[in-house]
Amino acid sequence: MRPHLVDNLLVVGMGLMGGSILKAAREAGVAKMRLGLDKDPETMRKSLAMGLIQEGFTPAEPLPPGKTLIILATHLDSFREIVEELLPLLTRDTVVTDVGSVKGPVVEELTSLLGDRGIPFVGGHPIAGTEKSGVEHSLKDLFVGARVILTPIQETPRRALELVHSFWEALGTRVEEMDPHYHDTVFAAISHLPHAVTYALVKAMGDAEKDLGDLLRYSGGGFRDFTRIAASNPHMWREIFRLNRDQILIFMRRFHATSKEIERLLEKEAWDTLEAIMEEARWLRRGLD
Amino acid sequence: MRPHLVDNLLVVGMGLMGGSILKAAREAGVAKMRLGLDKDPETMRKSLAMGLIQEGFTPAEPLPPGKTLIILATHLDSFREIVEELLPLLTRDTVVTDVGSVKGPVVEELTSLLGDRGIPFVGGHPIAGTEKSGVEHSLKDLFVGARVILTPIQETPRRALELVHSFWEALGTRVEEMDPHYHDTVFAAISHLPHAVTYALVKAMGDAEKDLGDLLRYSGGGFRDFTRIAASNPHMWREIFRLNRDQILIFMRRFHATSKEIERLLEKEAWDTLEAIMEEARWLRRGLD
Repeated sequence: MRPHLVDNLLVVGMGLMGGSILKAAREAGVAKMRLGLDKDPETMRKSLAMGLIQEGFTPAEPLPPGKTLIILATHLDSFREIVEELLPLLTRDTVVTDVGSVKGPVVEELTSLLGDRGIPFVGGHPIAGTEKSGVEHSLKDLFVGARVILTPIQETPRRALELVHSFWEALGTRVEEMDPHYHDTVFAAISHLPHAVTYALVKAMGDAEKDLGDLLRYSGGGFRDFTRIAASNPHMWREIFRLNRDQILIFMRRFHATSKEIERLLEKEAWDTLEAIMEEARWLRRGLD
Repeated sequence: MRPHLVDNLLVVGMGLMGGSILKAAREAGVAKMRLGLDKDPETMRKSLAMGLIQEGFTPAEPLPPGKTLIILATHLDSFREIVEELLPLLTRDTVVTDVGSVKGPVVEELTSLLGDRGIPFVGGHPIAGTEKSGVEHSLKDLFVGARVILTPIQETPRRALELVHSFWEALGTRVEEMDPHYHDTVFAAISHLPHAVTYALVKAMGDAEKDLGDLLRYSGGGFRDFTRIAASNPHMWREIFRLNRDQILIFMRRFHATSKEIERLLEKEAWDTLEAIMEEARWLRRGLD
C-alpha cells in the first residue's frame, strides 16, 4: 500500500467543496483518517453516513496524533473564528490551508494568527465548483483536471507549501502558484465581476417582468447558460464582494464605461464601430478556447 | 413511403443554420428536392459534395414545378434583395419563411413585398444555434427539441402558416406562435441584451489586459462559459442590434440602472442589501431550470 500523505485530513465546512474534497481524498487514499467539522449536526450525520468522513470532530477533543492537514472550506467570514477555536489543539505537525475565492486579506490574517503559534498557513483556491450547494451535491471528480492556485508569501514555510501542493496533485489537479494580491486582481476581472454583472442582469430582467409580464419563460439555452452563475450561493458571494471590494470596483467601473459606450453607439446607430468592437471581442474570446 | 411535405425546399444562405436545416430536412425526408442558393460558390460546392442539397440554384433558372418552401437563412440585411431577385420566379404555390432573430420589421417588409404578388410570408425564429458559423459546422440534430417561434400577422394565410408549422415539427421542434413585436421585446431582454453585455465585458477585459497584463489566461470554466456568446458572428449581431435597436436600448438602460446600483452598494459596503439582491436573483434564476 502506498504511504498516506498525511495521518489526518480535517475538513472544516462540509458543503459542496468540502464534501467533494473528502470524496476525492477517499478515492486517492491520501489520508489515514478523514475527519470533518461542520456547524450543522445534520451535515455531520450525512457525511458520516455517506462515508465521507470516518469520524466527526469537535474542538472539545484533541486532534488524533500525527501529521494533520486542515482545510477550511466554510464561508470566508468564519475562517478567523474557526482558527481561533482550533488554535489550542494545533501542533507544529499541522498545516492549515483553505479554498476561499479571495486570497489577499485571508492569507494576511491567517498567516499572522497561526504564525504566532508557529503553525503554517498556505492559501489555496481550487478553480472548481457548481452553482449547487450542500454535501449531498458533492462530486468525487470535481477537481479532476481543475486548476488549483496556491498563494504562498515570504512567511510560508516551503515544507508546508509542498505538502499542500502534493495533496492537490494527488486529487488530480494542476497546481500553480501566484501572489495573493495578484490572484485577487485576476479573479476580480474574470470571476467576481462577471458574477456581479449576471446578478444585475437577472435582477433587471426580474424587475422588467414586473412591469411587462412574462419574458423569462421564453429564455432559451443562451440566457440560461449565461445566467447560471446567478444561482450561486448569495452568502458566499457577499463575502467575496466584501473581501475583494476594491479590486471588483476597479473592474466594474471599467466595464460600465465600456457598456455605456456601447449604449451610446446604439443610440448613434454607429453600426460599423459596433461591428468592429464585436470583431475584437470575438477575437479575444476565441483565444480562450 | 410517407408523402413529402413539399416538392421543393430551397434554402437561401447555407451557413450553420441553413446547413443544419438541410441536414435535418434530409433526415426527416420532408422535401422531394432540396435546393440551395448561396452567394459563395465554395459553399455551394461544399453543400453539394456533403449531399445537403441535390442541386444548386440560381435565380437565372425557374424553380422546379410543385409546392415550394423557401427559407431565408442569410444575414437579415440581405433578405429584401434576395426576395426582390426571386420574386419573378415565385408562384402562388410558394411559401416563404425565414430564421431571423428579429421579427417586427422583417415580417412587415416581406409580407408587403411578397403580398403584392399574392405570395405568403411566415416569420420564423428557431431558438437554436452555436457560436460557430459556416456550413461545415452544421448539425443534423441542431433543432431536435428546440423551440421555434412563428410570428403570423393578420395578413398571413392560414394554409401557409400550417405548412411552416408542419415543416418545423417534422424536424423535431416545438412550435409556438407569437406577435412579431412582442417577440422582439422578449428577445431584446433574454438574448440581445445579454449578447451586448457580454461583448462589453470581453472588450473591457481585453482593454484591462492592455494596461495590466495577463488576466484572461487564468480564466476558468466560469468566464469561458459566460463569454462564449461573444464568439458569435459580428455581422449577424450588427444586424440584430440595428433592427431591434429601440427594444434593446430600453432593456440596456434598465440593466445599467441596476448594475450602477450594485456598484453604489459595493461602494457603500451595503452587504445586506447586496445579499438580498443576490437572493432574489437566485430565486428568479432557479425558476428557469
